[in-house]
Amino acid sequence: MSKRRIAVALGGNALGESPADQIAAVRRASVMIADMIAQGHELIISHGNGPQVGMIHAAMDLAACEKPGFPAFPFAECSAMSQGYIGYHLQQALHDELRRRALPDRVLSVVTQVVVDPEDPAFREPCKPIGRFHTREEAEAISREKGWLFREDAGRGYRRVIPSPEPQEIVEQEAISCLLSQGVTVIAAGGGGIPVVRTEHGLRGIDAVIDKDRSCERLAEALGAELILFLTAVDRACLYFGKPEQQELTVMSAREAREYIRQGHFAPGSMLPKVEAGLRFAESAPGRRAVITSLTHAPEALTHGAGTWIGG
Amino acid sequence: MSKRRIAVALGGNALGESPADQIAAVRRASVMIADMIAQGHELIISHGNGPQVGMIHAAMDLAACEKPGFPAFPFAECSAMSQGYIGYHLQQALHDELRRRALPDRVLSVVTQVVVDPEDPAFREPCKPIGRFHTREEAEAISREKGWLFREDAGRGYRRVIPSPEPQEIVEQEAISCLLSQGVTVIAAGGGGIPVVRTEHGLRGIDAVIDKDRSCERLAEALGAELILFLTAVDRACLYFGKPEQQELTVMSAREAREYIRQGHFAPGSMLPKVEAGLRFAESAPGRRAVITSLTHAPEALTHGAGTWIGG
Repeated sequence: MSKRRIAVALGGNALGESPADQIAAVRRASVMIADMIAQGHELIISHGNGPQVGMIHAAMDLAACEKPGFPAFPFAECSAMSQGYIGYHLQQALHDELRRRALPDRVLSVVTQVVVDPEDPAFREPCKPIGRFHTREEAEAISREKGWLFREDAGRGYRRVIPSPEPQEIVEQEAISCLLSQGVTVIAAGGGGIPVVRTEHGLRGIDAVIDKDRSCERLAEALGAELILFLTAVDRACLYFGKPEQQELTVMSAREAREYIRQGHFAPGSMLPKVEAGLRFAESAPGRRAVITSLTHAPEALTHGAGTWIGG
Repeated sequence: MSKRRIAVALGGNALGESPADQIAAVRRASVMIADMIAQGHELIISHGNGPQVGMIHAAMDLAACEKPGFPAFPFAECSAMSQGYIGYHLQQALHDELRRRALPDRVLSVVTQVVVDPEDPAFREPCKPIGRFHTREEAEAISREKGWLFREDAGRGYRRVIPSPEPQEIVEQEAISCLLSQGVTVIAAGGGGIPVVRTEHGLRGIDAVIDKDRSCERLAEALGAELILFLTAVDRACLYFGKPEQQELTVMSAREAREYIRQGHFAPGSMLPKVEAGLRFAESAPGRRAVITSLTHAPEALTHGAGTWIGG
């Protein structure tokens, strides 16, 4: 297979939460990523940050509540911290794995801002839970003080919810493109990117969380990638997932993907954003395809067509 | 003045602590940095992170003490978070300032690891205070539990101290060089870099803090910069600083710099590391010079020789 520019969206199962867990997880992931680099491909890697930014946000929030003079850290800043934290571990593990194989070990994690539209309908219906659990009384008090929105979360208490708008533009895409074309493996748009809006005074961070699969798709389009690999916990997307008639999909055309989405085969917040992002990518230009598979099967997806392929 | 590759070490006074302070501070700094980019120079920017990593470390430490199941975050991970946090603000402010002037707005903050020698004598004498103040009893208890070293800090209580070893190597220097040569302004080695050691299993984070002026000097050497600008609170280095006979220095040869250091003219932890790093840089190759000046005078240093110049 010839050299391709490939975007890889790493799912949460490829990362960890605590520093020790995460180091172990990214070292496992790096073996698969290095296999693909060894195949000669140019890789741009993005990743989730749910548990990590949750921990960082919770710690900063606790310190702001309990330590006199400790400032509040908005969500965009916590997201930037999570890019540093996860990017560091991924970059280190991949550097080590490439060096072990005597491959060029140039890997760089970059701070990435992603522009969203302040008029995105998601801002009218915040739905992503973040941060600590509160009692109803606490939630009401914080809501009065800071204007945050809370939702009851599966009987476990009240959590703040923030919007999940569509990514519009990757601010650093040109600089990232320079790196890729020089043979550097780039880790970018971690956690879906730091959410910002364009104002008359320039870019401004905003309390939101952008779906990492959607951001990875925008990045892949902007960088002229041929392929996106959505890596998740399962080897293939399925029809009738978890039911007796479950059926693994090896390929779906754009038309089929749209039909399966309409029939409700894919779980929101899990398989659905991957299929939707893959479909969008496949239709963005001729020759573009997306694959959904597990981390373990990623190198085989490129050589032997493992996984579920979306597009022509 | 012709186009030069210049490393800029931003002092703490160019940044802030709380998110709001920091946004205001980096916007002021970005005006000066953009002036230098407008002069046609290639810039690599590094910065301190003392107060910021202190806050992050304190918050993560508090959460680990008070929240059941919350993991401990070692110093290297907190340092990585601070690179994300500060890099995000700097990158955003500089992007906005360059765009306002219709200059190419390609700016990228990169996660940077800096290798130190585990045999560095600094590991035998930890001296950099970090984190919270503790009572003597608390400090003794933590010391027994975690093996951390504590020192009494100016009558305010006990603080953990960690080593400040010499930077040996910037792990990401090749990738950073690619960016610079493509006209991207790079923010790197924030806070002196994430401290790592090379082991038989690869790179590993270590509890240490690397002086940002020294790391910036290593980066400048590795990238073949012609000049380093150490930006600080004063316009020039002085002999007899703060005394009636105080004398501003406009230039010092390497020989003079060594002599003034020997005579104790420069304060450790403040002007001394800048003069030492500048001296090392000036002697690293013919034609290399360093300037110590204030942020406000930085553009003038390049056009009219403001500041204190070190080297031939």
